[in-house]
Amino acid sequence: MVDIIRIEARWIVPVIPRETVLENHALVVRGSEILDLLPSLAAQKKYPTSQLLPLPDHLLIPGLINGHGHAAMSLLRGYAEDTSLMTWLTDHIWPAEASLVSHEFVYSGARLAAAEMISGGTTCAADSYFFPDSTAKAFQEAGLRSQITVPIIHFSNNWALTEQNHIDQSLAFIDECKNKELITAGFAPHSPYSVSDAGFSKILSHSEELNIPIHLHLHESAREIQDHVKAHGCRPLSRIQTLGLLSSQLQVVHMTQLTQGEMELVANEGVQIAHCPQSNMKLASGICPVMQLQAKGMNVCVGTDSAASNNDLDMVQEMRTAAMLAKVSENDPSALDAFTALEMGTINGARFLGLDQTIGSLEVGKAADLTAVCFSDFSSQPVYHPVSQLIYTATAQHVTHTWVNGKLLYQNNRFKHLDTEQISADVQQWQRTVKALK
Amino acid sequence: MVDIIRIEARWIVPVIPRETVLENHALVVRGSEILDLLPSLAAQKKYPTSQLLPLPDHLLIPGLINGHGHAAMSLLRGYAEDTSLMTWLTDHIWPAEASLVSHEFVYSGARLAAAEMISGGTTCAADSYFFPDSTAKAFQEAGLRSQITVPIIHFSNNWALTEQNHIDQSLAFIDECKNKELITAGFAPHSPYSVSDAGFSKILSHSEELNIPIHLHLHESAREIQDHVKAHGCRPLSRIQTLGLLSSQLQVVHMTQLTQGEMELVANEGVQIAHCPQSNMKLASGICPVMQLQAKGMNVCVGTDSAASNNDLDMVQEMRTAAMLAKVSENDPSALDAFTALEMGTINGARFLGLDQTIGSLEVGKAADLTAVCFSDFSSQPVYHPVSQLIYTATAQHVTHTWVNGKLLYQNNRFKHLDTEQISADVQQWQRTVKALK
Repeated sequence: MVDIIRIEARWIVPVIPRETVLENHALVVRGSEILDLLPSLAAQKKYPTSQLLPLPDHLLIPGLINGHGHAAMSLLRGYAEDTSLMTWLTDHIWPAEASLVSHEFVYSGARLAAAEMISGGTTCAADSYFFPDSTAKAFQEAGLRSQITVPIIHFSNNWALTEQNHIDQSLAFIDECKNKELITAGFAPHSPYSVSDAGFSKILSHSEELNIPIHLHLHESAREIQDHVKAHGCRPLSRIQTLGLLSSQLQVVHMTQLTQGEMELVANEGVQIAHCPQSNMKLASGICPVMQLQAKGMNVCVGTDSAASNNDLDMVQEMRTAAMLAKVSENDPSALDAFTALEMGTINGARFLGLDQTIGSLEVGKAADLTAVCFSDFSSQPVYHPVSQLIYTATAQHVTHTWVNGKLLYQNNRFKHLDTEQISADVQQWQRTVKALK
Repeated sequence: MVDIIRIEARWIVPVIPRETVLENHALVVRGSEILDLLPSLAAQKKYPTSQLLPLPDHLLIPGLINGHGHAAMSLLRGYAEDTSLMTWLTDHIWPAEASLVSHEFVYSGARLAAAEMISGGTTCAADSYFFPDSTAKAFQEAGLRSQITVPIIHFSNNWALTEQNHIDQSLAFIDECKNKELITAGFAPHSPYSVSDAGFSKILSHSEELNIPIHLHLHESAREIQDHVKAHGCRPLSRIQTLGLLSSQLQVVHMTQLTQGEMELVANEGVQIAHCPQSNMKLASGICPVMQLQAKGMNVCVGTDSAASNNDLDMVQEMRTAAMLAKVSENDPSALDAFTALEMGTINGARFLGLDQTIGSLEVGKAADLTAVCFSDFSSQPVYHPVSQLIYTATAQHVTHTWVNGKLLYQNNRFKHLDTEQISADVQQWQRTVKALK
């Protein structure tokens, strides 16, 4: 017999229906699923043998969904600072990766990232990095749900030598993932500047055949556009369009440089967008015009990008930054309100990943991916609007409980099944190795 | 005999000298003062009877200095959201204040704010609000250092009826503060749109006579400028100049709307500037051109503004936002680097308040206002650059220890001399009162 858990939180925000704050309600979980969501008194009567978890000072929301990241790069958190995207990549990150990246590096980094994300209420993460099987192993052990897309670039690295080599390894990994719980897989051609036309065409053909998504960095910075115009005689998006990649299976990340025509184009094709405001601010890449994209009916979610350009994987702060950056850049304080920010961090992320039938809202029949945030400390008092409090006041450190697929992974600063001392010791070891590079 | 404490932190960043990270060092505190800063081994020998406080995973920095706030308004945290400065003030905040503001409200709110600030590593706060004696009482009981400037406006409220009335009460409060420990006082004419020419002139004359600062909201939003041009035929700064207020005793806050000529003007006069990036983003007020002001040699510090427009008093995040907003708005990822952000939150705040002989850096003879931040959780690992980790990764929740004037006020989630249950109960009571207004 499967246990039934009844979570009575001070506030429950199911995200669907929109702008709804429930008080005196209970969310009922059976096994991996949301069984019911109803008034607390009714829940007590209907499920008399259920186990009660009272969360008297807490907001219960759908688990946060991180639309874009490179988990392994958490081992390079703060490694190179206060520099531009291209300098950061070519002078610091890529040389470090050339020395470091291995099964072990990726496993250790992804485990660190998974621990940070789970402790911050993230229940599902989109990830792209070399040695994706090591990321998959780390995420599965941690209990995190994920979309793992396999990076494809036309230059050699520790994981693969040629573009074709990357594609072959992608296909093998995607095949392996078919039977892996909590993981969906896809292709991640890195960017227009690091994949050939032939490579994009092959990836598209595999994606269509296998019906799996393509995850792509696109129009991240002005420099990317300039260099692409020089090399190809057109803007990156134009080339991606010509190659036939624009569709609802295409997940594009960043999109800080867009003309009106380009916005129309991606909207018409139903392309999925991930906005990474903190990484874009820190690298001075630019600002994704979220309000204009949403006005055209596009689905925009939020991602942290890696901890090396953020420098954390705190989705609560990422939603805040998305809201605040939209307001100041649109010169409109009502832009991207708190409810919209929460949607971007939950249901929009689920839609981005094609997982909105399973996660992204607290609806009966969906998976029990849940996050509880506590508003009892002085920085969280008083509370007039719990969603506003979450978006404008809280941080990952206010998260107290995280469940994935009905499993409680984290509770009050304790991980249920991660060996935290071992992870820390491992990170210390990598820190020494990375420091020795310089 | 006064106890000597020897704090051996993993990293010590004294702020002066600039860009210095000390390892294997100890900060030695005697009574309220910094007695020494030297290698740990030398400290053990030189101060053999001193009491050791080991902080093995911690960064020790000067206490953070919040350049602008309205502590009592913490009771209105999240009360009115996603709206513009003027709508926020006239439709929400001012009506609520008209009903609520009293000695009791201000004392309760300031106590809540002091607790939040202390737990987040803030050791000194600039504050302006009605019933300043209640703020002073709350801050003194909490042990927080402060500059309390007294608000002056030309309309009536619960605290004072006329502009002259405000000025008279200011003078009385300023006189009372002469003998108060840890408090400096000053005038806070609210803004060009809420004080008359005659009022400004009187305030200036008192300020010069008493040699105390004037703290002023200035050029906060485009709407302020437009309205002022309509009402007075000139931009606010021009009127403030004509009235003779520009000097190094003038502390101006916000400054999001500035022409090149205006920047030159305030630079030439040595005006002090407080930048409140989160409040400016949230209210879509605009962006203070920090890099340009600093290039002209101006001193720019950071402030949270009130929790009603932020919505927290987290100076760690405020420094981060200052850095990230400068980068993206200047299109320069090297703009406002991590060390500069830390200076803005420490020594620049001390200069802004005219307290840089006493606080703002870890120098021998200065007051022991100190903050320790712990980097042991997964979101803080690994550490390559402790200052970068502080600015780009940490939050107020990573602060573990806060000292003001040598007194340890906060340690590992515990306040040394605040009755936290009583404060919470009091806040709950006010929350009910505020909710009943709507």
